[in-house]
Amino acid sequence: MKVPVVKEILKANDSVAVENRETFDRARVLVLDVMASPGAGKTSMLLTTLDRLDEGVRPGVIEGDVASSIDADMIAARDVPVVQINTGGNCHLDAPMVRSALPHMDLDNLDVLFIEDVGNLICPSNYKLGHHYSVVVSSVTEGHDKAHKYPGIFAGADVVMINKWDLADVFEYDLDFFTQGVRMVNRDVPILPLSSKTGEGFDPWMEWLHTAVGSIAPVQTTG
Amino acid sequence: MKVPVVKEILKANDSVAVENRETFDRARVLVLDVMASPGAGKTSMLLTTLDRLDEGVRPGVIEGDVASSIDADMIAARDVPVVQINTGGNCHLDAPMVRSALPHMDLDNLDVLFIEDVGNLICPSNYKLGHHYSVVVSSVTEGHDKAHKYPGIFAGADVVMINKWDLADVFEYDLDFFTQGVRMVNRDVPILPLSSKTGEGFDPWMEWLHTAVGSIAPVQTTG
Repeated sequence: MKVPVVKEILKANDSVAVENRETFDRARVLVLDVMASPGAGKTSMLLTTLDRLDEGVRPGVIEGDVASSIDADMIAARDVPVVQINTGGNCHLDAPMVRSALPHMDLDNLDVLFIEDVGNLICPSNYKLGHHYSVVVSSVTEGHDKAHKYPGIFAGADVVMINKWDLADVFEYDLDFFTQGVRMVNRDVPILPLSSKTGEGFDPWMEWLHTAVGSIAPVQTTG
Repeated sequence: MKVPVVKEILKANDSVAVENRETFDRARVLVLDVMASPGAGKTSMLLTTLDRLDEGVRPGVIEGDVASSIDADMIAARDVPVVQINTGGNCHLDAPMVRSALPHMDLDNLDVLFIEDVGNLICPSNYKLGHHYSVVVSSVTEGHDKAHKYPGIFAGADVVMINKWDLADVFEYDLDFFTQGVRMVNRDVPILPLSSKTGEGFDPWMEWLHTAVGSIAPVQTTG
């Protein structure tokens, strides 16, 4: 009895996701949905990424949280355009929520939009937002069994990060075991150990990101 | 349109939760729902708790996971009765899932049953399982903003733990800020910093637990 209802909700969501995608493509903005457990370090990763963007790449951020604007405040402190969505208890962002944020974003003056989803390794993976790529941030301190335990979100990932990599030795993190878990559901996704604190491991991620931005929104070299 | 459907699901869930509670009370088993983010250390906390239970207190565990039996295997290695529930994508346990596990548990020979919910700081708080108390495990490595960001689960907690306390200095954990977040939604809940790794801080938790067990299931002193 429950399944058809959920399917209807997903179908309605998907049609708004298609509209969102058309809006993003028209504005030539690369859009990434960043998903992770609570406290995996999505915001820290974004802050370090913002600091390392090539000159001329214009970023924006949509922050999704059940409550509070703690993360959005940190982004705003960098003078990056940011919109906060508080889901009021909902466990994930959905396409209509993202759509409602878009009038507050000057998309024509952005090249890349990061959507930080609600901290949750399960629900967000079921909702298309209109984004081009899904980035899943796992972290060393959560343990190396996350892909085995939450396969769904890793199955749909276009990039998998292992954040807090500076603590890998302290936590005796088993990269092989984690990789095995990811590969059970996703054969090709890049798995990038990195540290938002030290910047270690960010080069391959920034290269991936700049390539993706370039393919959708050629960077302006206005003089 | 979505809300009435959700309400119906919750109503159906609640009536099974009432049955579960009657079953637990008849068997005089204290039942705790243990909720946390992925990787906060629910299982490690349970393992340390099992090691410190007073002699004569007979524990059992229900393990809830989206997939895998990694945690249940660790519990079973201690010769503690354990049942694994794989939700197959669902983001929380519900009362019917717990009910389906009960025939596999010899409740008359248990004093305390720990239900380890799916790793998720949002969804599990909406579902009654028939348990007596809710234990929310936060952790130092997730950061001290979790109660501000996920107020719902802390509002319903009967015990709040801050696990991985041995790392509090390394992570510059701000206990006052976390406590402030919890107190915004829950005036009286005990907040217990502890480390499942070192055992630090377990005494107040074990005292709380043994008092609760004693109030529901007087410990057998069979000779």
